[in-house]
Amino acid sequence: MTGITLWTHARLAPTANPEHILENATIAVRDQRIEWFGDSAQLPAVYQSNSTHVHSLGGALVTPGLIDCHTHLVYGGNRAEEFALRLAGASYEEIARQGGGIVSTVRATRAASADELFASALRRLDALRAEGVTAIEIKSGYGLNLESERKMLRVARRLGQERPVTVATTFLGAHALPPEYAGRADDYINLVCEVMLPALAEEGLVDAVDVFCERIGFTLAQSERVFQAAERFQLPVKMHAEQLSLMGGTALAARHKALSADHLEYLDEAGVIALRDAGSVAVLLPGAYYFIRETQLPPLALLRRHRVPIAIATDSNPGTSPTTSLLLMLNMACTLFRMPVAEVLAGVTTHAARALGHPDVCGEIAIGAPADFVAWNIQSLAELAYWSGLDRCTLVVRHGRIALDKRMIAS
Amino acid sequence: MTGITLWTHARLAPTANPEHILENATIAVRDQRIEWFGDSAQLPAVYQSNSTHVHSLGGALVTPGLIDCHTHLVYGGNRAEEFALRLAGASYEEIARQGGGIVSTVRATRAASADELFASALRRLDALRAEGVTAIEIKSGYGLNLESERKMLRVARRLGQERPVTVATTFLGAHALPPEYAGRADDYINLVCEVMLPALAEEGLVDAVDVFCERIGFTLAQSERVFQAAERFQLPVKMHAEQLSLMGGTALAARHKALSADHLEYLDEAGVIALRDAGSVAVLLPGAYYFIRETQLPPLALLRRHRVPIAIATDSNPGTSPTTSLLLMLNMACTLFRMPVAEVLAGVTTHAARALGHPDVCGEIAIGAPADFVAWNIQSLAELAYWSGLDRCTLVVRHGRIALDKRMIAS
Ligand SMILES: [Zn+2]
Ligand SMILES: [Zn+2]
Repeated sequence: MTGITLWTHARLAPTANPEHILENATIAVRDQRIEWFGDSAQLPAVYQSNSTHVHSLGGALVTPGLIDCHTHLVYGGNRAEEFALRLAGASYEEIARQGGGIVSTVRATRAASADELFASALRRLDALRAEGVTAIEIKSGYGLNLESERKMLRVARRLGQERPVTVATTFLGAHALPPEYAGRADDYINLVCEVMLPALAEEGLVDAVDVFCERIGFTLAQSERVFQAAERFQLPVKMHAEQLSLMGGTALAARHKALSADHLEYLDEAGVIALRDAGSVAVLLPGAYYFIRETQLPPLALLRRHRVPIAIATDSNPGTSPTTSLLLMLNMACTLFRMPVAEVLAGVTTHAARALGHPDVCGEIAIGAPADFVAWNIQSLAELAYWSGLDRCTLVVRHGRIALDKRMIAS
Repeated sequence: MTGITLWTHARLAPTANPEHILENATIAVRDQRIEWFGDSAQLPAVYQSNSTHVHSLGGALVTPGLIDCHTHLVYGGNRAEEFALRLAGASYEEIARQGGGIVSTVRATRAASADELFASALRRLDALRAEGVTAIEIKSGYGLNLESERKMLRVARRLGQERPVTVATTFLGAHALPPEYAGRADDYINLVCEVMLPALAEEGLVDAVDVFCERIGFTLAQSERVFQAAERFQLPVKMHAEQLSLMGGTALAARHKALSADHLEYLDEAGVIALRDAGSVAVLLPGAYYFIRETQLPPLALLRRHRVPIAIATDSNPGTSPTTSLLLMLNMACTLFRMPVAEVLAGVTTHAARALGHPDVCGEIAIGAPADFVAWNIQSLAELAYWSGLDRCTLVVRHGRIALDKRMIAS
C-alpha cells in the first residue's frame, strides 16, 4: 500500500473529551486525510509496508488542529496609541477628535497597500499558527467600499495560499457606517447588497456574510436585507449579535439558518431556543469581553440547557480584542466565564468547525477527516487552558503535512 | 580604544517614559556596562576605531531589559487538574480531599529531583526570556523543610548560571504551614528562623527573605520573627501582604525597610504612607488578581498620591498565577487595573529593579548601568501592553552580550 504516513506514539485526544484519550495511538494518513486511527497494537497489517512513512510523536498529547472561527485579522495600523490615551484619561470624545475609534482603522486600512496588509496580518496569523491553529475565519469590514473590502478579502485568501492553514473568508461590509455615508445608513446597505456583495461573491472572495447588528451598528431591518442578499448568492450568514444590548439579531440570524451568532452577552432564552432550532453555533469571544471590561456574562446556563453548541474565538481585532492567542482565549473562557475544560476545547475544535462551515475542516480526528492535528508538550488537556504564555505546541500537521515543527529548536 | 561594542540605529526609550524616545540613538558598551548612550550624531569620536564592534538595531524600539520581581518559578508538578476540577464544579473541600491545593505542590516539589525541578522551571524561564526578561526573582516556599527549600534555591541559582539572566533568590520558608506542623505554626516559625534560614544564608543561597502574612498564612507576630531573623543575616525582607484581607503586614514590612510589599489589594492609606516613608516598592500582581477573580482593586490612587513606586510582576506559580508572560501582566495591569502605559512600563523596569534590590540590575539604560536591553518589533511603547500573544521581542542583550536573537528566524 503506497502513500501512507503513520504518526505513532501519540496520546490521542480525538475529540475535545478529556476522558477519551487513547494511549499509545497511531494515526494513518493518506491523501491529506485520516484513513485510520486507534490503538497502535491494533494497527491493521495492511499499513505495515516498506513504502509507509513512519513518524513517532514521542508520547506527546495530540489533539485536532485548533480553529479560530471569528477574527478580523486583516487591517491597517493598530490602536495602541488610542489604548494608551484612554488609560491616560482621554474621553471617547477626545479620542474621536484625534481621529481614533474604528474610523481610524478604516482610514489606515484604505490607505494600506495589499502587501502592507498582508505583512501585518501574516505576523498575527503566524502567532496563531504557532499555537496550533490550522483553520481560521477572516472577516473584511475595515474597507467599507468595494475596492478596500476586495483588497482585504484578497489578502485573506493570499494568507491561506502562503501558509498551511485553511482560511474561510467572511464579507462584513455591514461592520460600520463609513464616514462618507454618515446619516445615510440605508444607502450604504444598498451599496453593500447591490454592489459590493455581488461583485465580491462573483470573484469567489466570499465564503460567508456577516453583519454587526447593534445600536451602534445596523438595525434588524438592515441586517435582514444583508442576509437576503447573501441568500441570493447561496452564501451562509452569521451575525455579531447581542454584544452590547438585546437587539433580537440572534433570532433573525437563526431564521436565516446562520452558521453562528457571535458575542451574545445580552442574549435571552428566546434567542437561545432560536439558535438551537436553527442548528446555529453560539460563538463566545472572551477576549473582547475582557478588553472592554464587560460585566454581563453570556447566557451559558441557557445555552447548555438548550444544547446549543458553543465555540470560542479570538475576535482578533485592533479595537476591542488585540490578541493573537487562541490558547489565552481558552484560559479566559475558563477563568472569566467559568467554562469547564472540555467545553472550551470543543469550542476551538468540533464546534468551531461547525461555525466555520468549511468543507476542509472537521475539528476532530476522525476517519475520512482532513489530517489536521497538533502535538503538545503537556501531560493533560487541561494544561491547554490552565497556562498563559507557555509555549506548548511542538508540532502541527495540516492536511497530512508538517505545517510547523518546533521539536528541533534548541531552547 | 578597545573592547567597545556599539549598538546603533535604535529608537531608544532609556526609561519607561514614552515621551523620552531618542530617535537614531547608539548605545556604547564596555565590560558589560553602558559607557555612553545618546544621539548617534553626537557619538564621541573616541568610539570610532577599528577595534570597535558595531551592530545595527535596524531602527527597532529599544527598552531596558524587563524585570520580573516576584515569581515562584521553581516547583514540582502543576495544578491543571485542580483547575479543571474546580471548573467542573468541585468544591474546595473535594479538591482538598483529592490532595489538591498548595499541599499538592509541596508534595510534588519534595518528591522531585533537582534536575526535574530545573527542567520544568527552565521551560518557564525561557518563556519569560523570550519576552525580554533579563532579571528575575525566584522564591522558595514549596519545600517547607531545610532539604527541599535548599533544593529549590539551588535550582534557582543554577537557572541563573545556565541562562543569561540575573536571578535574585528569595527564601520563603514562611509560605505555608507544612502538613507535619499542623497546629504548630510557632514551632514551624522556629524552624524557619533558627534552622532553615541560618543554614541557607550561610550557603549563600538567599538574597532576600519573604513571608506570606495572611489569615491563611502567618500572623504579624510570626512574620516579625522571620524579619528579625533575616536582619541577623543582613538580608533584606519583603512580604506577601494584604492580598485577601487587611492584616497590617505592609506597615510591619515598612518598619523593617522592606524591598517591597506585594499583592496589596486590601491595603489602606496608613499602609501606603508607611511604604512611602520606608522607600519600599508596591508590587502588584495582576495575574493572581485575574486568576482568582478578585474584585478588590489595589489602592492605586493612594499609591500615586503618596508617590510609592509601583512594580508589576507575574507571581508565576501553579496555584494562583500559572503564567509565564510578563507582557500579559502589562496588558492585565492596563486592562484590569486601568494603569497608564508609562506606569506599567516603569513597573517592569525602574521600579522592578528597585524591588529586586540586586546590584547587577538597574532597570534603566543609563551610563554605568549593566548593558541589559531589548529590541522590539513595534512602533510605540504602548504596543508592549496593548497586544496579547504577539511575539514582539527580537533581540535581548544582557550584560553586553546577545542573550536571545530572533532576528534570523524565518517566519
Ligand atoms: Zn468581531
Ligand atoms: Zn507570590
